[in-house]
Amino acid sequence: MTFDISYNARIRKSPFFDCTVADGVKAFTTYNQMLMPAHYGDPEGEYWRLIDGVSMWDVSVERQAQISGPDAARMTQLLVPRDVSKIRIGQGRYAPISDAQGRLLNDPVLLKLDHDRYWLSLADSNIWLWARGVAYGLGLDVEITEPDVSPLAIQGPKSFDVTASIFGDWVRSLAYFAFHETVIAGIPVVVARSGWSHQGGFEIYLKDGTRGKDLWNLVKEAGQPFDIGPGTPTTVERVESGLLSYGTDTRPDTNGLELGLGKFINLDMEPDFVGKSALRRIRDEGIARRRTGLFIDGERLPTAEEHWPVLADGEQVGVCTIAVFSLRLQRNIAIAIIENTVPDSASYSVETPDGTREATETPLPFCTPGRV
Amino acid sequence: MTFDISYNARIRKSPFFDCTVADGVKAFTTYNQMLMPAHYGDPEGEYWRLIDGVSMWDVSVERQAQISGPDAARMTQLLVPRDVSKIRIGQGRYAPISDAQGRLLNDPVLLKLDHDRYWLSLADSNIWLWARGVAYGLGLDVEITEPDVSPLAIQGPKSFDVTASIFGDWVRSLAYFAFHETVIAGIPVVVARSGWSHQGGFEIYLKDGTRGKDLWNLVKEAGQPFDIGPGTPTTVERVESGLLSYGTDTRPDTNGLELGLGKFINLDMEPDFVGKSALRRIRDEGIARRRTGLFIDGERLPTAEEHWPVLADGEQVGVCTIAVFSLRLQRNIAIAIIENTVPDSASYSVETPDGTREATETPLPFCTPGRV
Repeated sequence: MTFDISYNARIRKSPFFDCTVADGVKAFTTYNQMLMPAHYGDPEGEYWRLIDGVSMWDVSVERQAQISGPDAARMTQLLVPRDVSKIRIGQGRYAPISDAQGRLLNDPVLLKLDHDRYWLSLADSNIWLWARGVAYGLGLDVEITEPDVSPLAIQGPKSFDVTASIFGDWVRSLAYFAFHETVIAGIPVVVARSGWSHQGGFEIYLKDGTRGKDLWNLVKEAGQPFDIGPGTPTTVERVESGLLSYGTDTRPDTNGLELGLGKFINLDMEPDFVGKSALRRIRDEGIARRRTGLFIDGERLPTAEEHWPVLADGEQVGVCTIAVFSLRLQRNIAIAIIENTVPDSASYSVETPDGTREATETPLPFCTPGRV
Repeated sequence: MTFDISYNARIRKSPFFDCTVADGVKAFTTYNQMLMPAHYGDPEGEYWRLIDGVSMWDVSVERQAQISGPDAARMTQLLVPRDVSKIRIGQGRYAPISDAQGRLLNDPVLLKLDHDRYWLSLADSNIWLWARGVAYGLGLDVEITEPDVSPLAIQGPKSFDVTASIFGDWVRSLAYFAFHETVIAGIPVVVARSGWSHQGGFEIYLKDGTRGKDLWNLVKEAGQPFDIGPGTPTTVERVESGLLSYGTDTRPDTNGLELGLGKFINLDMEPDFVGKSALRRIRDEGIARRRTGLFIDGERLPTAEEHWPVLADGEQVGVCTIAVFSLRLQRNIAIAIIENTVPDSASYSVETPDGTREATETPLPFCTPGRV
């Protein structure tokens, strides 16, 4: 069943909105109170272009919380579980944000622009309000703003050729999450090695919202020799790749350790951050749930619109947070949150809209980059 | 142009979702990361049912931030510009929330359930994170949660008859924003005299998400003698009535005084709240902008999807935050934020998608309740 989307100024348009409409966008979702293209009418074709070629995505919804001012480094360190003093300018870090109880609030990429200026490139939750509340309570001298910055992603194996043809061969040697501020055709941008797929690529952060059309067309033209086309983050690819979707795979009480983010949460470093002591306690006591993969038997299922109950021995032991039909594996796959006392050899069943199905657990990710 | 809406578990369904689908919902918007019905295929008919009759709305998206625990009263007082100690249990207050700079963060209704338990019935922003940040920074002993509570609105002049036929005649004497906890047909609810229209009515807060279908059908059946039908908050009615839409009529730097909310912001009371000193300064210095009404000349315009520039003497002096064609006045009307130095007798022009139009200022609201 499909429904129209209704929106007004409460749900903002991206600087690339008109270009995505001109290029045939058919569906939107919302994210950080903005419209995000969801597909252009051919989700499967768009998926294979990402796997085999190169795709350009309006991901303006990945908004930045900018932290600046005298206490910016101290504030940023309070929010993120990485040692901010050890990050060089021009480097980024995946940086899950937790509250004092250790519950995950967002899983942004932290970009260190200067010693007193940071961006959190956010997933879908209002970290501006969290950070401003913490800063208010602690009396920190910081400004927390949403700058006019809108990423455009270039993703897929041919993204390196496209991006190098625009900016030069130096982009090929950017480390993952590293970034560089530059200007192209008069348009101020940040070029980052990042993106919400496992197929490789870049995100071009547009720093002037009036130049959306110029940047879109520049990338589109540079991509023609490589058969670039418009696309979007694809749910099928992200599930195959085991990527976390904050808000889909989480609920308000989910913590980063049960999501498997332990290697991005430095509990043993010197600097303190919000949630550190709670997460240390969770680590010491052991996680109560685990994020894992499930193969679901039977005919092709529709993509899950909500969490599906997962049972073992007739008892609910968790949920599938998302389920899709894998185009590379040609079977139903799901990401699940399961009680950690259940052995991974358990016989599971999943309550789907098409009835109860048998399922078996498998480690994430389901697929490595590229064709299987 | 219409587009499909794409969603998964990141954008939650309401307990009434299946009922709204069965009753023919055609479009959704999103609000507090949930789906909200936007219309059922006949927006004009749904509008007139609200004006003349009675309409039932899935407004589950009006989520509650519940503040409880030993410091609940102190925390709530910090957030809201009303004297919490003077509110009786069972009373509500419209309570605009500001940050330390006086910027509006949300405009909820505060419900005092007990001396140590409060709900903020929220507009579209994440006050849970703001409140948890403030509580963390100040070391307050509170729990800030999102309880399983989903309002269903009954709105329109006949809403009194419908609601009285369900709960009894006592509902007719509920003061505005007063509420009462009760049980109907085994379903736990809060009955409140409130709703996002000026046509009168109630909101029934469902306190058990598994009973959505039961409550929906109960209201639907009780409403049959009054020709009740499914509806939604209507943009046309809210603009005619001058109601504030947080996120549509605001931007991150908008303060409550320039929105005309001064009478709901008690700057002279004893208790302190976040933003009080900043708002006193703004009051003393005078507001820089005002929220006002505009008549826009010419043929029927489409409903605004974004802010439209407003000019006086060729200079931009503000924006229309929303513009609609008024069905009661049969002309184009808009809510605007205008620089306060511009006299209200100015000759305005508005840059619409259909070209530049002349406009004249007029006080809000455009319409009183009922037929003009």
